[in-house]
Amino acid sequence: MKNLLDNIEEILLMGPGPSCVPTEVYNALSRKTLGHLDPYFLEIMEELKEMIRRIMNTKNNLTIPISGTGSAGMETSFVNLIEPDDRVLILINGVFGMRMQDVASRLRAKVEVLEFPWGTPAITEEVEKKLKHESYKIVAVVHAETSTGVRNPVDEIGGILKGSDTIYLVDTVTSLGGIEVRMDDWNIDVLYSGTQKCLSCPPGLAPLSFSDKAMEKLNARKSKVPNWYLDLTMIANYWGQNRVYHHTAPVNMLYGLYQAIMLILEEGTDNVFKRHSRCHKLLVEGLSQLGIKMLVEEPYRLPMLNAVCVPDGVDELSIRRRLRSDYKIEIGGGLGPLAGKIWRIGIMGHTAREENVERLLMALESTLYY
Amino acid sequence: MKNLLDNIEEILLMGPGPSCVPTEVYNALSRKTLGHLDPYFLEIMEELKEMIRRIMNTKNNLTIPISGTGSAGMETSFVNLIEPDDRVLILINGVFGMRMQDVASRLRAKVEVLEFPWGTPAITEEVEKKLKHESYKIVAVVHAETSTGVRNPVDEIGGILKGSDTIYLVDTVTSLGGIEVRMDDWNIDVLYSGTQKCLSCPPGLAPLSFSDKAMEKLNARKSKVPNWYLDLTMIANYWGQNRVYHHTAPVNMLYGLYQAIMLILEEGTDNVFKRHSRCHKLLVEGLSQLGIKMLVEEPYRLPMLNAVCVPDGVDELSIRRRLRSDYKIEIGGGLGPLAGKIWRIGIMGHTAREENVERLLMALESTLYY
Repeated sequence: MKNLLDNIEEILLMGPGPSCVPTEVYNALSRKTLGHLDPYFLEIMEELKEMIRRIMNTKNNLTIPISGTGSAGMETSFVNLIEPDDRVLILINGVFGMRMQDVASRLRAKVEVLEFPWGTPAITEEVEKKLKHESYKIVAVVHAETSTGVRNPVDEIGGILKGSDTIYLVDTVTSLGGIEVRMDDWNIDVLYSGTQKCLSCPPGLAPLSFSDKAMEKLNARKSKVPNWYLDLTMIANYWGQNRVYHHTAPVNMLYGLYQAIMLILEEGTDNVFKRHSRCHKLLVEGLSQLGIKMLVEEPYRLPMLNAVCVPDGVDELSIRRRLRSDYKIEIGGGLGPLAGKIWRIGIMGHTAREENVERLLMALESTLYY
Repeated sequence: MKNLLDNIEEILLMGPGPSCVPTEVYNALSRKTLGHLDPYFLEIMEELKEMIRRIMNTKNNLTIPISGTGSAGMETSFVNLIEPDDRVLILINGVFGMRMQDVASRLRAKVEVLEFPWGTPAITEEVEKKLKHESYKIVAVVHAETSTGVRNPVDEIGGILKGSDTIYLVDTVTSLGGIEVRMDDWNIDVLYSGTQKCLSCPPGLAPLSFSDKAMEKLNARKSKVPNWYLDLTMIANYWGQNRVYHHTAPVNMLYGLYQAIMLILEEGTDNVFKRHSRCHKLLVEGLSQLGIKMLVEEPYRLPMLNAVCVPDGVDELSIRRRLRSDYKIEIGGGLGPLAGKIWRIGIMGHTAREENVERLLMALESTLYY
């Protein structure tokens, strides 16, 4: 039989994720599989939890990787906390805020939304105004809106919620490992991410953390979590001291995540953030020289996800196809109302290197003008 | 920083899963990550779907790997089909039947169970009697009950359900790739498995198939699937011709599964099943010479999961610990009422080799008697 795996080419991944994976992480994925209750594997789990805490800047006991992709992190966060008719406020300025609304609604929450134009950030004052008159069990926001390249003021909103009974739930799928995320300092109660963005591990796991306050809400539920696979009370029993079997942990993916976070901690998170920022600036300057504008105003731009306006008269899909076929570079298109109007250029994790940005700029120039 | 991954030893995995992983599969896991919408990756997805169909013996269009472990396959199967108050009959003779009951109950189904003693199979005549007087939306059973080593008569029960409106849902987590599974011939509507048993890929994915009849029930739902992450209507749009982004597929794990199934198809499923059967017989004979009895009567034994009675007076945990530390072999303990009473010896997939069985028998003899 012909084996398609033999002909996989190395593509420079500059889309909205997955990002490029370091050799050390590929090697980690192919370490010998251990049993999910093996004593040595349990040691790896313990260190992995501690490394996730460090990268999230939290002391939360329940800090673990969920056995699914970033979206499974979102599902886990909501399904463990929502009971029917719970009031939930979701800030929406892109696809992933909308996804939160869909997830929470399916769980029979009473969902309200505060919408902001796509390409602009949530406005803290409007959130504050809303919270003066209404109270919610959960307020949820996406830190780095992957569909628009906007950074939401997660720290400021956390300031408003400080001391309240509300659970503050934040999606850091695209931000974690690329810009600062300070879970405890920002009063975040529930935080999740994905492995395939700035952590530079292939997709498949969702690092997640619940504060003690969130765990209290979970433990005070009147009904069982309506999702056996993602029930954190049981998952915590496996990842905690009891080691009670729940489901078979994805052992080799966990090796990959362990190695990926270790590389970030060894480089130093500040250095990693600076590297993202440098590459972002280089990209914006280069694009500007090509006459290409950014969608988002400067103060709200994410370094790792650059929403770039497609120049007038350009067929964006044919450019992306040529980048892929002729230059072995992947960039992303727009989603929803931004489809056809923007490209999404990822500078995430291991991808965030000057030579990669330069390679893309040269390829883009050739593709657009020659 | 000390890297624990550097000191992972190769353990002979003879527990209830994960099983040993072939070198080719480890290599596949570390192939270069492609984007989840990359044209070449889409080709790999197409072939993978076809290979899963071949190993399940089905022509079902919706035959895909779910982005979670085997338990996510169970969750997906129930959550897509159950609406509140739907009547569900679950056959229970072990932990995984009980898990089905828990999963379905959380989804607000009206669950009834038909229980059989642990270590014995479901009895087709009793199922038939039950179905004469009652009708259900779903009848669910575990093919290979991993907690007891019993094979349930999935083909016979499928015969009873032929032509009915009932959805026949079967768990083949431990059976698929080790004994015959004929989804279409046995009238199975919903079937799921896991990667870490007889498929010999690390844990992390759940191959799953829905018949057209099951898809009709799904499409006729009155309410949205109460689980965004596992909603098959959306997942089918990504794995189908539309390629609509849902969540980022776990690319490298999918490479691993592709390679793992290819190895099985290349060896030939009949040869693979015979290999499992040969190793099972060798194990039973060897254990018998050590005076160790099997829990399950011969006609109902699974070749890949051997429930073995712990000899009187033996501390089962200390034996398992010595096997792990002195002989680098993992075997499993009992679950629930069988905890402390049995060992579970897996001969799954790549583990199913005569030399492995012999190595375990020698180690067990030394550990028990010297």
